[in-house]
Amino acid sequence: MKKYFLTFFSFTLILFIVSSCSNNSKKIKQKTTTPKEKTFALVIHGGAGTIKKEYLSEAQEKAYRKKLEEALNAGYTVLEEGGSSITAVQKAINVMENSPLFNAGKGAVFNSIGKQEMDASIMDGKTLNSGAVAGVQHIKNPINAAILVKDSTRHVMLSGKGAEDFAKQYHLAMEDAKYFYTEKRYQQLLKMQKRDSIQLDHSTSMINTLIDDHKLGTVGCVALDKNGNIAAGTSTGGMTNKKYGRIGDSPIIGAGTYANNISCGISATGTGEFFIRTLAAHEVSALMMYKGLSLKEALKQVIHVEIDSLGGDGGLIGLDKDGHIAWDFNTAGMYRGYKTSAGDQKIEIYNQ
Amino acid sequence: MKKYFLTFFSFTLILFIVSSCSNNSKKIKQKTTTPKEKTFALVIHGGAGTIKKEYLSEAQEKAYRKKLEEALNAGYTVLEEGGSSITAVQKAINVMENSPLFNAGKGAVFNSIGKQEMDASIMDGKTLNSGAVAGVQHIKNPINAAILVKDSTRHVMLSGKGAEDFAKQYHLAMEDAKYFYTEKRYQQLLKMQKRDSIQLDHSTSMINTLIDDHKLGTVGCVALDKNGNIAAGTSTGGMTNKKYGRIGDSPIIGAGTYANNISCGISATGTGEFFIRTLAAHEVSALMMYKGLSLKEALKQVIHVEIDSLGGDGGLIGLDKDGHIAWDFNTAGMYRGYKTSAGDQKIEIYNQ
Repeated sequence: MKKYFLTFFSFTLILFIVSSCSNNSKKIKQKTTTPKEKTFALVIHGGAGTIKKEYLSEAQEKAYRKKLEEALNAGYTVLEEGGSSITAVQKAINVMENSPLFNAGKGAVFNSIGKQEMDASIMDGKTLNSGAVAGVQHIKNPINAAILVKDSTRHVMLSGKGAEDFAKQYHLAMEDAKYFYTEKRYQQLLKMQKRDSIQLDHSTSMINTLIDDHKLGTVGCVALDKNGNIAAGTSTGGMTNKKYGRIGDSPIIGAGTYANNISCGISATGTGEFFIRTLAAHEVSALMMYKGLSLKEALKQVIHVEIDSLGGDGGLIGLDKDGHIAWDFNTAGMYRGYKTSAGDQKIEIYNQ
Repeated sequence: MKKYFLTFFSFTLILFIVSSCSNNSKKIKQKTTTPKEKTFALVIHGGAGTIKKEYLSEAQEKAYRKKLEEALNAGYTVLEEGGSSITAVQKAINVMENSPLFNAGKGAVFNSIGKQEMDASIMDGKTLNSGAVAGVQHIKNPINAAILVKDSTRHVMLSGKGAEDFAKQYHLAMEDAKYFYTEKRYQQLLKMQKRDSIQLDHSTSMINTLIDDHKLGTVGCVALDKNGNIAAGTSTGGMTNKKYGRIGDSPIIGAGTYANNISCGISATGTGEFFIRTLAAHEVSALMMYKGLSLKEALKQVIHVEIDSLGGDGGLIGLDKDGHIAWDFNTAGMYRGYKTSAGDQKIEIYNQ
């Protein structure tokens, strides 16, 4: 009996040793495999609206495409060099804020009293830390002020003079009204004001001859960096002829901007009020987290069901935790593009 | 054959007539039954924070309870008389805005430069129409201005001077700084400013001797009317010693206030930044709609998991489409109460 027991014991011991070795070799193998190159990507928008091919000259289209590419490259370089998604979003948005082509920073639209009031926000998907400024008139790059609010205050949102004084205290670049002025945007204000009075006479035929781009050009970016962190940011001048003091969705976390490493990052553009009422950016994340929708499905639901049913218009760009990119809009077009570490790049304008 | 057919036809005809009469009598019966009394209810809060029994005198506690009851009754009367949930929310909040006991309207806290900047918002759960004002200094009842923004503009949120000029245009009651001033709140500012300098010396012993009620007293109400419509509203002076221009969660739809007839109505109070980052009010609704949680479970998840994990403090009140009422908070207390058409009424202050 003892003999049998010893044989059995020895056999078990050998099996155990062999099994351990095998496990160890597996572990060693795992350790020595080359780590998979980390995925990184970014997606941008430069506003959604009635953008049809017949409204843009070849030169205009080329200028937009060039600037969108410049913005993508600015953000991509940050990510490629191992920088954070927050910095990538900032750099991409700065390019568009500094261009008069978009309704953010230089080239912001005018409100009903002929002033330019700009809004911006940023969100860090790792910590949910957020920053925003609303109704600022002199900060060259509102997105930089939003990042400063996130990093250097216990607050999320600063508005008006309080935000401007705070930005000055941290020596952010300031500009006077002349810098932000563009003749095109001023003409849009005059057109809008004329149209508003026309609307009272129900002369819709004349309304239709005006290109409906008064709320075009909000800019946004969502990025995923090599550390798997998502960030989203949005910057805008709002709507032409808006009441002064009006705050739209762009500086509101969950409406115009949202980022959460568990789900996705989102930036919105369009008639902001509808994106506030639906909490569009947060809603996409909630549909993904709690209803199991993909990013693409969630964007479709928010734009084509929720925003549509309220009569709203605009678009959303997004990027999920695995680097999948999607966008959706219910307007004729949206300036948009993306670039990924897998080598994919696309820039589009019209509904295709 | 013909005879059989006639007999069958007659029999079928008789059956049809009898059946029709029976249906008609059912219809008549249905019409004559007394319609089930429609459920209506409201829930209010007057702020969450370090409210312990030992901090309040008997007289103070009595004053708070009396004012909460007055607010409940003001809203309840509207609902009982068949008024809308929006009006009920407005009337309940007006009572608390007009009382110096709460940090909203008269009795609002002071910001870092000794000014009172107030925020408020309202949301209609039937249409998702929303209105908000931020950083207003002279509007007697900020919640009334929020309702006006909802009803009389194409915008959701107006801030600062733009919001004030708009309110004046509609002849809302305005007050000067003297009206809003209370000695208690001014002393809180001085204490907070002293404490902030003390905090730099890490003299925590002295900090603990000060009652931490600098952000107490935001008020809110959620109501369900006889038509099954939910509305939610919030009004606040924000945080003592906040940076001027700071906007908290109270005027932000989805953060401090949310209403949707499909799910629930919510009003928040606490350190607003955490309620913005978690989109607390909208998150409760999303957890109910997409994860199937009950109102109570959703409130618990948002306060004790999401807000807690970020280190935030505060509370939420809510009411679902069936009139179920719930509240939750992670502070020592929250001024709160509810009243329902079923005859239930409760007013509580401490954590019980």
